[in-house]
Amino acid sequence: MEYYTKLVEHYKTISNFGHLSAISGWDAAAMMPSGGNEARSQAMAQLSLHIHQLSTAPQLGEWFDKAQSESLNSELSASLREMHRTWQLTTVVPEQLVKAKSLAGSKCEHAWRTQRGDNDWNGFSANFAEVVNLSRQEAQIRADATGLTPYDAMLNIYEPGTTTEQLDKLFGDLTSWLPDLTQQVIDKQSQEKVLMPNERYSIEQQNKLGLEVMKLLGFDFNHGRLDISSHPFCGGVPSDVRITTRYDEQDFTQSLMGIVHETGHARYEQGLPNGLSGLPAGEARSMGIHESQSLLFEMQLGRSNEFINKLSPLATQLFTENNAATFEVANLQKIYTRVQPGFIRVDADELTYPAHVILRYEMERDLMNGVIEYQDIPELWNIKMQQYLGLSTQGNFKDGCMQDIHWTDGSFGYFPSYTLGAMYAAQFMAAMKQTVNVDEAVRSGDLTPIFHWLSENIWSKGSLLTTDELVKSATGEVLNPLYFQQHLRSRYL
Amino acid sequence: MEYYTKLVEHYKTISNFGHLSAISGWDAAAMMPSGGNEARSQAMAQLSLHIHQLSTAPQLGEWFDKAQSESLNSELSASLREMHRTWQLTTVVPEQLVKAKSLAGSKCEHAWRTQRGDNDWNGFSANFAEVVNLSRQEAQIRADATGLTPYDAMLNIYEPGTTTEQLDKLFGDLTSWLPDLTQQVIDKQSQEKVLMPNERYSIEQQNKLGLEVMKLLGFDFNHGRLDISSHPFCGGVPSDVRITTRYDEQDFTQSLMGIVHETGHARYEQGLPNGLSGLPAGEARSMGIHESQSLLFEMQLGRSNEFINKLSPLATQLFTENNAATFEVANLQKIYTRVQPGFIRVDADELTYPAHVILRYEMERDLMNGVIEYQDIPELWNIKMQQYLGLSTQGNFKDGCMQDIHWTDGSFGYFPSYTLGAMYAAQFMAAMKQTVNVDEAVRSGDLTPIFHWLSENIWSKGSLLTTDELVKSATGEVLNPLYFQQHLRSRYL
Repeated sequence: MEYYTKLVEHYKTISNFGHLSAISGWDAAAMMPSGGNEARSQAMAQLSLHIHQLSTAPQLGEWFDKAQSESLNSELSASLREMHRTWQLTTVVPEQLVKAKSLAGSKCEHAWRTQRGDNDWNGFSANFAEVVNLSRQEAQIRADATGLTPYDAMLNIYEPGTTTEQLDKLFGDLTSWLPDLTQQVIDKQSQEKVLMPNERYSIEQQNKLGLEVMKLLGFDFNHGRLDISSHPFCGGVPSDVRITTRYDEQDFTQSLMGIVHETGHARYEQGLPNGLSGLPAGEARSMGIHESQSLLFEMQLGRSNEFINKLSPLATQLFTENNAATFEVANLQKIYTRVQPGFIRVDADELTYPAHVILRYEMERDLMNGVIEYQDIPELWNIKMQQYLGLSTQGNFKDGCMQDIHWTDGSFGYFPSYTLGAMYAAQFMAAMKQTVNVDEAVRSGDLTPIFHWLSENIWSKGSLLTTDELVKSATGEVLNPLYFQQHLRSRYL
Repeated sequence: MEYYTKLVEHYKTISNFGHLSAISGWDAAAMMPSGGNEARSQAMAQLSLHIHQLSTAPQLGEWFDKAQSESLNSELSASLREMHRTWQLTTVVPEQLVKAKSLAGSKCEHAWRTQRGDNDWNGFSANFAEVVNLSRQEAQIRADATGLTPYDAMLNIYEPGTTTEQLDKLFGDLTSWLPDLTQQVIDKQSQEKVLMPNERYSIEQQNKLGLEVMKLLGFDFNHGRLDISSHPFCGGVPSDVRITTRYDEQDFTQSLMGIVHETGHARYEQGLPNGLSGLPAGEARSMGIHESQSLLFEMQLGRSNEFINKLSPLATQLFTENNAATFEVANLQKIYTRVQPGFIRVDADELTYPAHVILRYEMERDLMNGVIEYQDIPELWNIKMQQYLGLSTQGNFKDGCMQDIHWTDGSFGYFPSYTLGAMYAAQFMAAMKQTVNVDEAVRSGDLTPIFHWLSENIWSKGSLLTTDELVKSATGEVLNPLYFQQHLRSRYL
């Protein structure tokens, strides 16, 4: 185990620098004044470069060769496999390209924070052109090394083992029944009366409610915190998970369910196997599995009738200045299952969300594969939004192609994870319900049996299993979109 | 300039890692939940090691030799001199000793956090013995390399160019008139009536007042923030300065003047020369000059009658729930110039503070030079406290020799900076008043002329000049304790 042990020490060193990167990244989004950006970008680019150098250290090839012939038990073999996967993903991209992409990404993302509000596509695209250019170079290099298409090679970073072929099939399945179902639900809901939030909801009380709900969902405040950022996310490290939200004084519903969502991500991180901390095998399995945990919290649990029965009295108690009728169970249920096509992905309901993802998937796939150019994006966005959701984004960049942070730093290949996550979440919940009385646990206010199942089947596994193995071991089969369909039909029809 | 340029690049790289260290350190003190400590400590130790390795990289000696024969203008020569100074300070101590001292220091400091409360000198000294032992080794190595005495070699880290000979003279001057002056002031004040804070002062309002005062003092919120930590400090980086305070609901006066103090540090950092950012020559000149800026803000400006005339209406407006008499100008003036000998350095007033510093200076000087042993400290502390401030610390370690964090990690040589800072501040203010109508600027609420003088004479100089050159160019002479004496006599008699 001499070489396996050397590798472990090396990857723990990398993880220490990754820790600093996670905390400075969180700080840049949640704490840093904008004048700090230039020096921070330089420092973080330097850190990325150092992490890249450590990750591509020349001795690693030999160490991997030698470790692969050492006698390792199945856990250590899996750990070695994940270090090797990480190493391959990193080694293939030249240092100069990593540095250039990181700088271009920081610059583009930072400017986007104001350009989006100004609906300034021209300003944005001046920076974005370079991000696309460098990302395509990266995709081509990864494609050459793996024999995959450029886009599949990028997808492989976030969803190891998933291919365009599978996604076209899975997303094709969705598009075969989802538009009809959505229309049916819209028709059905058109008869319903809903009292939507239309007052001022104190941000202080929204924050208190969010913290209450995080407690109910088992968030460990000794190992994490809740803050504010313009784009909510889950960051930090497993021993100190930093989630963020944004508050809208006119609407408590978004921040509340946003916090439920990020708490799902956070509990996955907080529940990762301690004994593998600092090693790739101790990290989350994939972005899709990560999203399955946030969506299991938000969509499967958070919008269930039982959970809304718990939320209603909490909200009523806190928003004493507001109309209590808004917080009645039946009304909250309607608010949280309301279906309405809209421009903004992060505001989308469970039924229309996949359209937002599929649209982005098709565009980033074609952009990386050289089928379209970045200049085509606004028009294609408009065409696809009209086709999938009946909405025009002509000239409306800020609610169209400039709404997301992902592409600003070149994270092409990430978007499919959201809808993969929704499908995994439905399948995990269906499997959990075979042995756990989920509704009863939520009603009782003690959700331990739910967390126990998730910890046992997902969180504590880290990346010891492949995605397919993990899903199979938890549910008895690989990803099957039927569970998602069943879930949506049973909730919305 | 080939080698000078190589050095610049190298020191900018080190500075990028220093940036991450500053932000993670701030985060650990102001944001991190306690469960995050173990992983953070590991990550920060890894980063320190990396910075140390970069700072002692084997090629640097040759680069310095070659750069020193390159043709450089006076600014670049000064920049080279400061890089070289930094390098010598770091390189001279063997890595094993740095590591051993860091470990012994962490251990001693960590245990001290509970031992202090327990008044446990025996427990403390068990760890402290090793810190002293390793610090003496360090001092001897530094002495051998520089030809200085061991203590002067340590002092040189914080106050380049300052010697025991100078300090003995400066502090000797102080002790010749300060005890008498202090007694005179105490007698005079014994007749005065002061309404001390004795209500609850909302932390929200204290925070608002702090932010107002920071605005008045020109803090640039686009390049910094104010937060809370258990020990107030000024951290971060020049483009993003993080100051902290702690609020006491029973007493608004400490946090308020604490914020004024840290704002002085912050404006120095924010005003350092941009063109030298990331280089030693672009950093603050010394700890004493740094403290001169915080004390110029706190003592020279903050406690002046004119400034208190501005504070009074701000406080009255914000603390509407509290007794307005407390915030009347005459009362605030009395609160902020109250003189009373006490045990605790950080709570000391302007007149008794130097005694706390001189006492520590005399002891750390003799400890490093081998004249006394660490076992002698409690008794010497008691003797000197009786002599300087008329207070006994017999058996009272927690309010005596165990009250400060500085010695726990072996920062011997740091204490003089506090009183040097007070003397520099008085001299800077006296010089400023030759050309700037300071009182009128404060009365008008537009302090720009004051900041302009400081920027021109101190902040924008970074470390381009030596300390003596800096003080001479700003005030026409090197440090002269007469200005401090004049300031104290004019304010307190």
